[in-house]
Amino acid sequence: MPAMKSQPAVTPRTRVRRHPERASYDRAVVNRVLDEGLICHLGFVVDGVPWVVPTMYARAGEVLYVHGSPASRMLQAAGSGAEICVTVTLLDGLVLARSAFNHSMNYRSVMLVGRPEPVTEIQEKMAAFQALVEHVVRGRWEHVRATTAKELKATTVLRLAIGEASCKLREGGPGDTREDAQLPIWAGVIPLQLAAGPAIPAPDLPPQLALPAHVLGYRR
Amino acid sequence: MPAMKSQPAVTPRTRVRRHPERASYDRAVVNRVLDEGLICHLGFVVDGVPWVVPTMYARAGEVLYVHGSPASRMLQAAGSGAEICVTVTLLDGLVLARSAFNHSMNYRSVMLVGRPEPVTEIQEKMAAFQALVEHVVRGRWEHVRATTAKELKATTVLRLAIGEASCKLREGGPGDTREDAQLPIWAGVIPLQLAAGPAIPAPDLPPQLALPAHVLGYRR
Repeated sequence: MPAMKSQPAVTPRTRVRRHPERASYDRAVVNRVLDEGLICHLGFVVDGVPWVVPTMYARAGEVLYVHGSPASRMLQAAGSGAEICVTVTLLDGLVLARSAFNHSMNYRSVMLVGRPEPVTEIQEKMAAFQALVEHVVRGRWEHVRATTAKELKATTVLRLAIGEASCKLREGGPGDTREDAQLPIWAGVIPLQLAAGPAIPAPDLPPQLALPAHVLGYRR
Repeated sequence: MPAMKSQPAVTPRTRVRRHPERASYDRAVVNRVLDEGLICHLGFVVDGVPWVVPTMYARAGEVLYVHGSPASRMLQAAGSGAEICVTVTLLDGLVLARSAFNHSMNYRSVMLVGRPEPVTEIQEKMAAFQALVEHVVRGRWEHVRATTAKELKATTVLRLAIGEASCKLREGGPGDTREDAQLPIWAGVIPLQLAAGPAIPAPDLPPQLALPAHVLGYRR
C-alpha cells in the first residue's frame, strides 16, 4: 500500500488523548510544521532523567537530521539505540478569553518518537549538512564555502525516520461559555510570529559585499 | 549564606559541557529567560521513553508552575515523584558564516531538572493561576472573570522548585576562521524575535468593547 507510506504511524502512545479534536496524523500537516520550525526540543534519557535540549534539525523526505559535536551528550545518548522524542512547536497566538480559566494559546506542535541512527556514509552526511543549512536559510548552501571532509568527520549526524508522528494544533478564537461571552470583557487573539529583523553584517565584513537575496528577502 | 539562596545549584549533570563559555548559572539570567519565554518543553519518562510536550508555565519567585487537565498524561507523569526536565528556549537570530560548517544560531535556553509537586492548597493554586495569566499577558488578571472553586478543582497545578538550573546562550556574529573571513561571502546575523500582530477580536465580541491597554500595547 504505497499510499500509506507517506502517513506517519499512529500508535496508542502517539495518539493524542487530551483534546483529540486538535490532532492530525496527516503527513502533509506534520511536514509543514517540521519545515516551518527552526529548532526542535530533543528528549533523551540518561540515568532515568529525561533531558530536553534545543537543537537545529532538517527534514529531508521521510527523515529528520540532527547534528553536532561527537562529544555532545545529547548525540551520544540519542545515537545509542534508545528511543528519543523530538518535538517542534510553533506558537501562533495568545487566546484571551473572558474567564481566566479559558485562556489558551494557538499553536502547532509535532512530536516524533523513534531510535535515530548515526549517518556514516559520506554522501548522505553531506546531503544532511546541505539540508540543515537550506532548512534554516534557503539559497544559502550554494553561496557558502563548501564543507570539507575534515569538517564532516568532526560532526556527528543522526537520522530519525519520521515514523511515529503526531501533530497537535489549536487555532481560532477563545472558547468561552455562552454565559461568559455576555460579559463586557474584551476577548480575542493576539497573533504571534517569529519575525526577522534587518540583517546585521559581521563586524569584519568588507563594505562592498552586498546583501545576497537569500538574506535580504529572508522570511520564515 | 543567604546570598547563595538565589543562585541555582550547579551540579555535575546540569553543568554545561559543550561550549562551557556559553553557560550561565546566575539566577538573574535564568529568571530573565523564564520570564520572557511563553512556553516550555517539558520532558517526562513513560516506559523508558522521554516524551517532550510544549506547555505554558509561569515563574513566581523561586518556583515554576505548570498546569492542565487532571487527565493529562504529562501532568500525571510529572506529578508522580519522578524527575522531569523543563526547557525554555528563546531564538534570537540566525548566524550566517562564510562556511556551512560555522553556521549557528543565537539563542538563550534555560534547563531545569527536579521533581515537581502537586499544588493542593487553594490559595497557592489561585496564585499560580494568576501567575500563569499574568505571565502571558501582564494586566490581564484584573480584567477577566475570576476563577471559580470548581475551575480550580478541575485543574492540576504542579510546582517545580527552581533548584538545578542552567542557562546556555550564544550571541554575536559568526565565528569564521581567519582564512574563511577573507572569502567574498556575506556573513552576519539575521535577528529573530517573536512579534505580536494586531489583536483579532472574538467573532461574538460586541463592537463597543474597546481594546484594553494590556492588549493594545502587547509586546513580548
